[in-house]
Amino acid sequence: MNEAEERKPIIVLVRPQLGENIGKAARAMLNFGLVEMRLVEPRDGWPNPSAGPAAAGADSVLEQAQVFASTAAAVADCAHVYASTVRKRGVTKPVVTPEQASREIVSKPGRSAILFGPERSGLETEDVALARAILTVPINPDFGSLNLAQAVILCAYEWSRNQSLAQPPQEELLAPAPQADLDALVAHLERMLEPKGYFLPEHRAEVTRRTLRGVLTKPAWNHLEVRTLRGVLSHLDRAPRP
Amino acid sequence: MNEAEERKPIIVLVRPQLGENIGKAARAMLNFGLVEMRLVEPRDGWPNPSAGPAAAGADSVLEQAQVFASTAAAVADCAHVYASTVRKRGVTKPVVTPEQASREIVSKPGRSAILFGPERSGLETEDVALARAILTVPINPDFGSLNLAQAVILCAYEWSRNQSLAQPPQEELLAPAPQADLDALVAHLERMLEPKGYFLPEHRAEVTRRTLRGVLTKPAWNHLEVRTLRGVLSHLDRAPRP
Repeated sequence: MNEAEERKPIIVLVRPQLGENIGKAARAMLNFGLVEMRLVEPRDGWPNPSAGPAAAGADSVLEQAQVFASTAAAVADCAHVYASTVRKRGVTKPVVTPEQASREIVSKPGRSAILFGPERSGLETEDVALARAILTVPINPDFGSLNLAQAVILCAYEWSRNQSLAQPPQEELLAPAPQADLDALVAHLERMLEPKGYFLPEHRAEVTRRTLRGVLTKPAWNHLEVRTLRGVLSHLDRAPRP
Repeated sequence: MNEAEERKPIIVLVRPQLGENIGKAARAMLNFGLVEMRLVEPRDGWPNPSAGPAAAGADSVLEQAQVFASTAAAVADCAHVYASTVRKRGVTKPVVTPEQASREIVSKPGRSAILFGPERSGLETEDVALARAILTVPINPDFGSLNLAQAVILCAYEWSRNQSLAQPPQEELLAPAPQADLDALVAHLERMLEPKGYFLPEHRAEVTRRTLRGVLTKPAWNHLEVRTLRGVLSHLDRAPRP
């Protein structure tokens, strides 16, 4: 395993109930480049035929998933363990957001793991006790029911954000057209408007010109867009087609 | 609707296929305090009996969901429209991350909407054309399949994260005109261009319309600026003054 792989957190599903949710969690992981899943006592055994279809192509994550008999065994090689839970446990541990946890994970040496509890009940106190910190998603206090794959994707997303690896591909944005092109567009429009009385009354003409110029300056159109608008004006200036 | 509610983005599901996914999207929204869902032509009609169970308690979101016959109608009152899509469209629009979009949403005046396409196919080019920016989650380039509720929860989460950054709106800055005003401007110009042969040849008409729409969507003109341009068009349409 190379260093980049070692820096990725391990997602540990503790006593997951539905194979479908294991598959969805795998998909959520791979969406953001996480690949190592560990399962602690999955209720219906492993492999689980319901997991594959729900993974929607993230089969590699499922195939490599390792199964452990206890949470302690699953995190035995980890230096940083986070317990994902919303509930107070009476355990005095630091509480961090996914963002804070991700920053720690990417900046500190040693392997990291994030524990997620069973769908219905969440992590047990014994599981939480293994963790150095509690990871809590800052959620609507009146509606805190977050499903397993959703909790996983938010953690994976935050890890990815803090990796700063992924930027959306910026389609080549063209620079605004040179001012001369814009001037020519404004002049073209003014020539057409003049005979229609747009700049009357005379004493308002200066303000009207400035307003029009302002409206056309704001967009920062590029040269292709200016060319499109010149074409629009030329067409408007034509006689209707027979 | 109070100001805090108005600052929340509207989640617009365009032609969603499965009621279950509508319910899951509602749950994801409410997890982070978003409450306003709009549906454009849901495949199986509305209400959909599969939505409620999947919402897992977020029934209020579903009950208040409004249904629209077109994407344009669904965002007619919105000043900021984002199209959530991963695919290149050949449409030159700014591409933003959920984080960047959220910062804009909480800091700019006017209502915001985020469009999500059908589960299988994503947004159509026509839908994307209505938006000023494309919202793309920076995802694993080798595994970019993000399901609907997952895409919604990441946007809702980011909005929630950036909420606290909300600045009071700058007084002098007018919000972009509602989308309906922009539609009327585009329609006005098209009516004038049609008889001049601008949309010929026929097989190019669709692309030409989209290009024109893009040029006029980019500026984010406010209602005064749109009114100025309507005045310009009315004058151009007149006979020359004697």
